[in-house]
Amino acid sequence: DRCGFGEVIFGEGKSAELITRIIQTQLDAQQHALVTRLDNTTAAQVRRCFEHAFYNPLAHTLRVGQLECPAAQQLDIEQVDQIPHVGVVTAGSTDQHVAEEAIETLFWMGIPFRRFDDIGVAGPARLMASVPQLQKADALVVVAGMEGALPSVVSGHVAVPVFAVPTSVGYGANLGGLTPLMGMLSSCTANVAVVNVDAGFKGGYLAGLVVSRIQHATTKTSD
Amino acid sequence: DRCGFGEVIFGEGKSAELITRIIQTQLDAQQHALVTRLDNTTAAQVRRCFEHAFYNPLAHTLRVGQLECPAAQQLDIEQVDQIPHVGVVTAGSTDQHVAEEAIETLFWMGIPFRRFDDIGVAGPARLMASVPQLQKADALVVVAGMEGALPSVVSGHVAVPVFAVPTSVGYGANLGGLTPLMGMLSSCTANVAVVNVDAGFKGGYLAGLVVSRIQHATTKTSD
Amino acid sequence: DRCGFGEVIFGEGKSAELITRIIQTQLDAQQHALVTRLDNTTAAQVRRCFEHAFYNPLAHTLRVGQLECPAAQQLDIEQVDQIPHVGVVTAGSTDQHVAEEAIETLFWMGIPFRRFDDIGVAGPARLMASVPQLQKADALVVVAGMEGALPSVVSGHVAVPVFAVPTSVGYGANLGGLTPLMGMLSSCTANVAVVNVDAGFKGGYLAGLVVSRIQHATTKTSD
Amino acid sequence: DRCGFGEVIFGEGKSAELITRIIQTQLDAQQHALVTRLDNTTAAQVRRCFEHAFYNPLAHTLRVGQLECPAAQQLDIEQVDQIPHVGVVTAGSTDQHVAEEAIETLFWMGIPFRRFDDIGVAGPARLMASVPQLQKADALVVVAGMEGALPSVVSGHVAVPVFAVPTSVGYGANLGGLTPLMGMLSSCTANVAVVNVDAGFKGGYLAGLVVSRIQHATTKTSD
Amino acid sequence: DRCGFGEVIFGEGKSAELITRIIQTQLDAQQHALVTRLDNTTAAQVRRCFEHAFYNPLAHTLRVGQLECPAAQQLDIEQVDQIPHVGVVTAGSTDQHVAEEAIETLFWMGIPFRRFDDIGVAGPARLMASVPQLQKADALVVVAGMEGALPSVVSGHVAVPVFAVPTSVGYGANLGGLTPLMGMLSSCTANVAVVNVDAGFKGGYLAGLVVSRIQHATTKTSD
Amino acid sequence: DRCGFGEVIFGEGKSAELITRIIQTQLDAQQHALVTRLDNTTAAQVRRCFEHAFYNPLAHTLRVGQLECPAAQQLDIEQVDQIPHVGVVTAGSTDQHVAEEAIETLFWMGIPFRRFDDIGVAGPARLMASVPQLQKADALVVVAGMEGALPSVVSGHVAVPVFAVPTSVGYGANLGGLTPLMGMLSSCTANVAVVNVDAGFKGGYLAGLVVSRIQHATTKTSD
Amino acid sequence: DRCGFGEVIFGEGKSAELITRIIQTQLDAQQHALVTRLDNTTAAQVRRCFEHAFYNPLAHTLRVGQLECPAAQQLDIEQVDQIPHVGVVTAGSTDQHVAEEAIETLFWMGIPFRRFDDIGVAGPARLMASVPQLQKADALVVVAGMEGALPSVVSGHVAVPVFAVPTSVGYGANLGGLTPLMGMLSSCTANVAVVNVDAGFKGGYLAGLVVSRIQHATTKTSD
Amino acid sequence: DRCGFGEVIFGEGKSAELITRIIQTQLDAQQHALVTRLDNTTAAQVRRCFEHAFYNPLAHTLRVGQLECPAAQQLDIEQVDQIPHVGVVTAGSTDQHVAEEAIETLFWMGIPFRRFDDIGVAGPARLMASVPQLQKADALVVVAGMEGALPSVVSGHVAVPVFAVPTSVGYGANLGGLTPLMGMLSSCTANVAVVNVDAGFKGGYLAGLVVSRIQHATTKTSD
Ligand SMILES: Nc1ncnc2c1ncn2[C@@H]1O[C@H](COP(=O)(O)O)[C@@H](O)[C@H]1O
Ligand SMILES: Nc1ncnc2c1ncn2[C@@H]1O[C@H](COP(=O)(O)O)[C@@H](O)[C@H]1O
Ligand SMILES: Nc1ncnc2c1ncn2[C@@H]1O[C@H](COP(=O)(O)O)[C@@H](O)[C@H]1O
Ligand SMILES: Nc1ncnc2c1ncn2[C@@H]1O[C@H](COP(=O)(O)O)[C@@H](O)[C@H]1O
Ligand SMILES: [Mg+2]
Ligand SMILES: [Mg+2]
Ligand SMILES: [Mg+2]
Ligand SMILES: [Mg+2]
Ligand SMILES: [Mg+2]
Ligand SMILES: [Mg+2]
Ligand SMILES: [Mg+2]
Ligand SMILES: [Mg+2]
Repeated sequence: DRCGFGEVIFGEGKSAELITRIIQTQLDAQQHALVTRLDNTTAAQVRRCFEHAFYNPLAHTLRVGQLECPAAQQLDIEQVDQIPHVGVVTAGSTDQHVAEEAIETLFWMGIPFRRFDDIGVAGPARLMASVPQLQKADALVVVAGMEGALPSVVSGHVAVPVFAVPTSVGYGANLGGLTPLMGMLSSCTANVAVVNVDAGFKGGYLAGLVVSRIQHATTKTSD
Repeated sequence: DRCGFGEVIFGEGKSAELITRIIQTQLDAQQHALVTRLDNTTAAQVRRCFEHAFYNPLAHTLRVGQLECPAAQQLDIEQVDQIPHVGVVTAGSTDQHVAEEAIETLFWMGIPFRRFDDIGVAGPARLMASVPQLQKADALVVVAGMEGALPSVVSGHVAVPVFAVPTSVGYGANLGGLTPLMGMLSSCTANVAVVNVDAGFKGGYLAGLVVSRIQHATTKTSD
Repeated sequence: DRCGFGEVIFGEGKSAELITRIIQTQLDAQQHALVTRLDNTTAAQVRRCFEHAFYNPLAHTLRVGQLECPAAQQLDIEQVDQIPHVGVVTAGSTDQHVAEEAIETLFWMGIPFRRFDDIGVAGPARLMASVPQLQKADALVVVAGMEGALPSVVSGHVAVPVFAVPTSVGYGANLGGLTPLMGMLSSCTANVAVVNVDAGFKGGYLAGLVVSRIQHATTKTSD
Repeated sequence: DRCGFGEVIFGEGKSAELITRIIQTQLDAQQHALVTRLDNTTAAQVRRCFEHAFYNPLAHTLRVGQLECPAAQQLDIEQVDQIPHVGVVTAGSTDQHVAEEAIETLFWMGIPFRRFDDIGVAGPARLMASVPQLQKADALVVVAGMEGALPSVVSGHVAVPVFAVPTSVGYGANLGGLTPLMGMLSSCTANVAVVNVDAGFKGGYLAGLVVSRIQHATTKTSD
Repeated sequence: DRCGFGEVIFGEGKSAELITRIIQTQLDAQQHALVTRLDNTTAAQVRRCFEHAFYNPLAHTLRVGQLECPAAQQLDIEQVDQIPHVGVVTAGSTDQHVAEEAIETLFWMGIPFRRFDDIGVAGPARLMASVPQLQKADALVVVAGMEGALPSVVSGHVAVPVFAVPTSVGYGANLGGLTPLMGMLSSCTANVAVVNVDAGFKGGYLAGLVVSRIQHATTKTSD
Repeated sequence: DRCGFGEVIFGEGKSAELITRIIQTQLDAQQHALVTRLDNTTAAQVRRCFEHAFYNPLAHTLRVGQLECPAAQQLDIEQVDQIPHVGVVTAGSTDQHVAEEAIETLFWMGIPFRRFDDIGVAGPARLMASVPQLQKADALVVVAGMEGALPSVVSGHVAVPVFAVPTSVGYGANLGGLTPLMGMLSSCTANVAVVNVDAGFKGGYLAGLVVSRIQHATTKTSD
Repeated sequence: DRCGFGEVIFGEGKSAELITRIIQTQLDAQQHALVTRLDNTTAAQVRRCFEHAFYNPLAHTLRVGQLECPAAQQLDIEQVDQIPHVGVVTAGSTDQHVAEEAIETLFWMGIPFRRFDDIGVAGPARLMASVPQLQKADALVVVAGMEGALPSVVSGHVAVPVFAVPTSVGYGANLGGLTPLMGMLSSCTANVAVVNVDAGFKGGYLAGLVVSRIQHATTKTSD
Repeated sequence: DRCGFGEVIFGEGKSAELITRIIQTQLDAQQHALVTRLDNTTAAQVRRCFEHAFYNPLAHTLRVGQLECPAAQQLDIEQVDQIPHVGVVTAGSTDQHVAEEAIETLFWMGIPFRRFDDIGVAGPARLMASVPQLQKADALVVVAGMEGALPSVVSGHVAVPVFAVPTSVGYGANLGGLTPLMGMLSSCTANVAVVNVDAGFKGGYLAGLVVSRIQHATTKTSD
C-alpha cells in the first residue's frame, strides 16, 4: 500500500527546521506531505528546501511531493459527475479559508471533488438551484459559521454522509464556533457527522476516505 | 385603554389560592386573565372558582374572562389572509406544546393567527410549499428544538420580524435548549429576535404586539 | 417593491475589493448598501470608489447610495412624536457605539427614530424623566452592558416590542456580554426580545421592520 | 461574648440524630441553634427532642433556644424606623421562601428588620412607593430570580450595602439561578455584594452583621 | 429507489397513537419503520397494532416491517470478512445500550456488521487482539463514555472513517457526556467524526451509509 | 449631605475629554472624583486639567479633589486599632493591584483602613500571626486569585462582613477568575459576600460603607 | 506478583448477574474484588453468592475475598505512626461517604491509614490541632465540598503528595462539584493533585499506590 | 532538613527586582531557587545578579543555586533503571515546553528521571515499544494536549501513580486545555491524578515527591 495516505503534519508551534525534517522523512518513505496551520513566514522557510512545494495562503497549508502516486495531481472538477467524488459546500465567503483547507487535503489525497460556494440559508434560491448537483456527490463537506444551519438543510436533500465543519466566524452567542458545533451535533437529520471548529482538514479527510473506500471496492470488483 | 393587555400570571410554584386571588383582581379591573406554566392539579382547583375558564393541558395555560373586550374570542384562522395577523410555525410535533402556549396567548390578546405545523428542515418540501402563505403574515413565531435551524431558514423567505422560540427538545449537545437558543441568536439573517427556551408565551406576546400596533395605526388612519 | 431593504454586508474579514464589488451589484439593483463591522482602513479604501458614501467610525458602518428611495435621508428626530417611529435607548456612554450601529441601520432603512442616551439604572431619575417620551415610540431598541437590567426596567413602562441588545461592556462575570444576554432572555417582563451581543444592527433592523409594517398598513388603509 | 452567634447547621444530608446531637452541644454552650435546608420529616424528628423549637416550613429552617440572650425574640417590625435595622426585599412571590430563610436568620440573630414584598421591576410603581422606607434601612437583603435586575435598581436609591440573593426561579436562560447571580455581580451600581443562589441565610447573616456592628459601636459610644 | 431508507421516528414524547399512524404511513409506502427512544410502555401499545414488530428493550428501539426489501434481515455477522461491512465497537459493558441502538439501525438498513465488545483502554491487551479484525471493516462506530479515549486509539489502527459516539456514562467531570464529546472532536487522529451524546442511531446510520455507497458502487461496476 | 460619596467614573473606553467633563461637573457639585480602570495615557491627559489630581498606576485609578470634606485625606494606618476601620487583605503579591484599587476607593471615601499583605494559604504561619489584628477591623476586603481559598480561611477567624474579591491571577482551571469567584460564593463560612472578578473598587466601597454607617451611628449617639 | 491489585468493578448500571460473574473470575485468579457505586438492592443480591463479602452502605462499595493476601485485613489505625501510611481527611460530615469509599479502597489494598474527620476551614482550631499527625502520613487524601479550600490549606503544612477529592456537596455556585474541582486544580500550593468529583475510590487508590511503592522499596532494601 | 524543597516562585507579573530579592532570601536560607513562567526579558535581568543561574527558554524557568545539596545536579538519565525515578512522557512535540517545566523542576529537586518523547496515540507502535521501560518508573508525568487520551492509555500499562498534565495545545473543542483536563479527570483507569492545564511544574513536583518519599524510606531502612 505504498501510495497510502501519510500522517498529516500539524504546523502550529513547530519550527521550520522540525517541519522540514519530518517532510523529508515522509518523502523518503515515498509519501506526499501535507502541513496544516502553517503561517506565511514559516512556510516560506520550509518551501525553500523542496522543489515541488505548494503553499496555499488562504488555507495556511503546504503540500510537498511529486512522486509517482496520483495524489496532488489536479483533477477535472467540472466533470466529476460520472466518478465517485466529494462535494465541498460553504455558507458564505467568510467560510472560504476553512473550505480551502478541506480542498487542499483532497488534492493531497488525489480525491476528485466539486465546490459549492456561498449557498447559505440567507439566500435560499442559490441553495435550491444546487440541489441536483449536490445529489451527485458520494460524501459532502459542509462548512458554516454563525448558527451553522447549513448542514442540517443540505443533508435533508441527500442520502450520503455529510461531514459538517463549524467555523469560528461570528461573534457573541457564536462562542468562537461552539454554537454551530453544538447545533450541528443536535441536527434533526440523521446523516450529519461533525468535526472540530475550523477543522477543514478533518472534514476533507473523512469525506476523502469515503470516496477512497468506494474507489478501492470498485477496483477490486472490476478486476 | 380599558381593554389593554393585563399582566400575565406565571403559575409555576404558586398556590391555587394565590392564583385565584390574582385572577379575581384582574377580572374586577375588567381584564381577561392568562396563567402560564400551570399544572393540571392546580388548574382544576382554580377553574372551579370561575365560570368562564379554559385550561389547555398541552400548553399548561389557563384563560379566564368573558368580558366585553374582543380578547379570548375565536377568530377565523383559515381566512386571515386579508387582515394583519401572526404566523405560528413549528419544526416538528415535539414542539407542539410550546406553540400552543403562543397560541393561547394570541387568543387571550384577541390577535388573529395562522398555524404552520411540522415544516422543519428534515423535510424541505413541506417548508417550500408553505412559503407563499408565510409571506402573508405581519410577524412570525417560529418554534424549534434540536439545532433550531428553522428560524434562520424561514426568515430568509420573509421581510417581517421573526420571533424565534428555542425548545428543550433534544439531548446531549442540545444542552436543554441552550444550543438552539445560541444558534438563533447567531442567525445569519437579520430579522430574527429570540426569546427564552420554551417561552412560547413571550414569542406569542411579542408577535401579537406587532399586529396590535398595526391595528391601532390603521384604526387611527381610517378614522 | 423596488425600494425594499437589500441584504446587509457583514464587513469583518472581507477584502476591500470584495466589498466594493458587492456594493456595486446592489447599487446596480437600485438598492442602498449598508456594510457593518468595517474597520477604518478597509472603509477608506472602499469609500474612494463611490461618490455618496458615509462612514461612521463609532458604529464601524458604511452606507452607500443616493437613489430616489427615501432611505439614507435624514429625518427630523426631534419631531417624531406624531409619526410611527423607533426609540433607541442606551444605559451609559460606553454603549454608544452599539446604539450608533442601530441608528445607522435605521437611517439606511429610512425609518424615523428618537434617541434616549445614558438613562441606565444607576441614575433612576434620568430614566423616570424619559418615560412619557418612551411611551410614544412604536418599538424600542434598548442597548445595555454590565448586568443588562435596563430592558427589563424600560419594558415595564411601555406596551410595544422591546428589542434588547446586550453589549460586551464590563468584565469578569459579564462574560463578554453573555451575562446581560442571558439576563435579558430571562426578563420578568413579557415584551422583551433579544438579539446577539453588540448586534446593534439587528436591534435596529427589527425595530425598523415593525415601524415599516405600520407604515405599509397605514398607507394601504389611507388609500 | 456569651451571646455571640454560634455556627449555623447545614441540615441537608444530615440525620436527625446527628442534628439533635449538634443542637444539644450548642444549647449547652448557651447558644441558640439554627438549622437550614432541613426537610419536613427530619425536622419533625428533631423537634420532638426540644421544648423551644420553631420550624418554618417555607424557609425549611429550624430555630431552637429560649435562653436569656435577646436572639429569637420577636421585634416590632412596623416601628423599626428609629433603630438600626435590615430591609428584606423580594421581587415576586416566588422568591418568598428564600426571603423567609433570611428572616429566620435575622430572628435567630435578634436583629430588627422590615419586609418589602413583591416590588420587582415588572411593576415599577410599587417599587417607587417603597423608596422612602427603603432609605431608612442600614443594610438591605434583595432577593430576586429570573434576570435578577432588582438589586441594581434598588441599590441606585440607597447608600448602604445591598446583599443580593439570586434565586433559582426561572427556566432556560436563567440557568438555575446562575444568570441572576452573574448579573448581580456585574451590577453597574457600586454597593451590591452577592451571595450564592438561594442563599437567603447568607444574605440575612451578612446584613445582620452590619447592623450588629452598628449596635456594638453605639453601645460602646453611649457608655 | 423503492427500498431506500425512510425517515426514522424519534419516539420520545410522542403518543402511541401518533407513532402507530406514522408507522402505518411508512409501511403503506413500502418502507420498514424504525422508532428510537421509545419506552417499554408505549412500545407495548404500538407493537400490538403490527404483525412484524421487534422491540429491543436495551436499545429502546422498535422495528416494524416484513417487506420484500433486504432490510431487517439477519446477516451472518461471523463471516462478514469478505463483504463490505461496519464494525461496532464498545469500550465497556455500560456502553452496550448505545451500541445496540446503532446495531438496530444497521439491521433496519440491512447493512452487515461485526461487533467488538468491551475493548476499552483500561485493558489494552483485548484491544490489540482485535486490531486485525478491526482493519477489515469499511467504517467503524466506536462507542465510549467517561473520557472517551477509545475512538482516538482505534482510529490510529485503521484507514476508514470512524464515527465516534460519546455516552453519558460517567460522573462529575464527564459532564453528562460532554467531556468525551469534546475529546472526540479534539482527537489527534484525522479520521474521527463525531455524533451527539448517546446517539447510537446516528453513528450506525452514518457508517451504514458508507457501506451502502460501496454496495451501490460495486453493483454498478459489476454490471 | 454635601460630603456624600459621588458616582464613581468607569474609565475604560471613555475619552479624556468626556472624563474631564464629568470630573468638572462633580467638582462643581462639591464632590471628590474617582475614576477607575483608567490607562496611563488617558490619565496623563486628564491630570493636566486639574490642580489636585493623583494617579495610582498600579490601581489604574485617578482621584481629583481638594475640598473641605475629609475624603482623600491620609489617615494614620498604623494606629487604626481604636477607631472603626476596614482591613484590606491580599493572598500574594500578584493580587496587589486589585487591593490598590480598593485602597484608593477608601482614600476617596475618607475611611481608615489597615493592610495585610501576602498572607495567603501557601504560607500558613504569616496568616496565623495576623489573626489578632484582623479581628480588630469592622469589615474586611479579601483579595485572592488562583483557587481563592483565602476569604474562607480568614472569615473563619472574624465576626464581621468579609467582602471577597476574586482576581484573574492564575491560568487554565482558574478560568480568568471565575473559579475563585464561584469558590468564594460557595464558601462554607457564613460571612463572605462576593463582588466581581478584579473589582477592588467594589470591595473597598462596600467595606467603606459599613464603616461609614458605624461612623454615622456613633456620631448620632454621641450627640 | 500474585497479590497485586486487580481491576476495580464500576457497579453503576451493571446487573447483579454480571457483577457476580466478574467477581468470581477475580477470585479464581486469586484476587480480592472491590465493587464501587453499588446500590443496596444489587449489593444484597450479589452478597448472597459469596461467603466473605462486606458491603459498606455509606460508601456504596462491596469487598469480596478471604485469600492469603494481606488485603482486606484490618490494620491498627491508631498506631500507624511508625509505618508508611495514608491520611484520609474530610472537611465536614457531609463529605463522609466519599471518604468511606477511599477507606474501603485502602482496606482492599491492605494499606494502613489514619482518619482526620471534620477539620474544615470553618473551624480553624480543629485543623491546627491535627497538623503534627498530618505530617506523619506519606500521602494524603483530602475530601472537601462547597468551595473546596481544604486541600490548599492542608497541603501548605505537609511535604507529601495530596490527592484532593472534590465532592458535589453544596448548591448554586458549587455547580455539582465543579467549583471545588476547578479550585483544587488552581491551588496555589504545589503538592495538590486532583481526581474526579466524588471519586473517593481514585483518591484512596492513588495514595495507596504511593505507600505501596514505599513498602516495595523498603522491602527490597531491607533484603 | 536543610536541603528540603523551598517555595517555588511564580514569575508571571512579578518585576525583576522583586524576583531577585526573593531568590536572594532563599539562597541565604541555603535553598536552591526555582522561578516558573518567567519571560526572556525579565529572566535576562535577574540572571545578571547571580553567578550560578540557568534559564530554560523552552520551559520559561530559571534555576539559581550551587550549594552543597544534590539538587540541580545532573543525573545519568540513561541508567536510571536500578534507582527510584520519575518517567516524563509527552504525546507530541508541541507538548515539549510543558514537559520541560516538569523536568526543570525535577532537576531542581535532584530527582532522577527518564524521558519518553512523542509516543502519543496517533502512532501506537512507538507507545507499545516503550512499555517495558515505562514500567520501571516509580511515578509518571504524562503530558498531552488535544483530547488528552495518553494518560488513560499509559496508565493501563503500569501500577504507579500517573500525574496527568493537560496542555492548551489544540483549538475549538479543545477549549484551551479544558477538554483534556476534564477527560483526564474522567479517565476509566484508577491511577490517574490530574493537575492544572500546562502545569508541568506541578506534575514534576508531585512525581518528584513520590520518589523523594521512597528515597527517604529506603535510606531509613538501610540504616
Ligand atoms: N453586524 C452583523 N451582525 C450579524 N449579521 C450581519 C451583520 N451584518 C450583516 N449581517 C448578515 O450577514 C449576512 C451577509 O453575510 P455576507 O454574505 O457574509 O455578507 C446578511 O444576511 C446580513 O443579514
Ligand atoms: N435517536 C435519534 N436521535 C436523533 N435524531 C433522531 C433520532 N431518531 C430519529 N431522529 C431524527 O428525527 C427526525 C424525525 O423526527 P420526528 O419527525 O419528530 O419523528 C428524523 O429526521 C430522524 O433523522
Ligand atoms: N471599576 C469599576 N467596576 C465596576 N463598576 C464601576 C467601576 N468604576 C465605576 N463603576 C460604576 O459604574 C457606574 C458609572 O459608570 P459610567 O456612567 O459609565 O461612568 C457607577 O455607578 C459606578 O458605581
Ligand atoms: N507554574 C506554577 N503553577 C502553579 N503554581 C505555581 C507555579 N509556580 C509557582 N507556583 C506556586 O506559587 C506559589 C508562589 O507564589 P508567589 O508567592 O506569588 O511566588 C508557591 O506556593 C508555588 O507552589
Ligand atoms: Mg451570504
Ligand atoms: Mg419531523
Ligand atoms: Mg451611567
Ligand atoms: Mg410580580
Ligand atoms: Mg472495562
Ligand atoms: Mg505567596
Ligand atoms: Mg463543619
Ligand atoms: Mg505525533
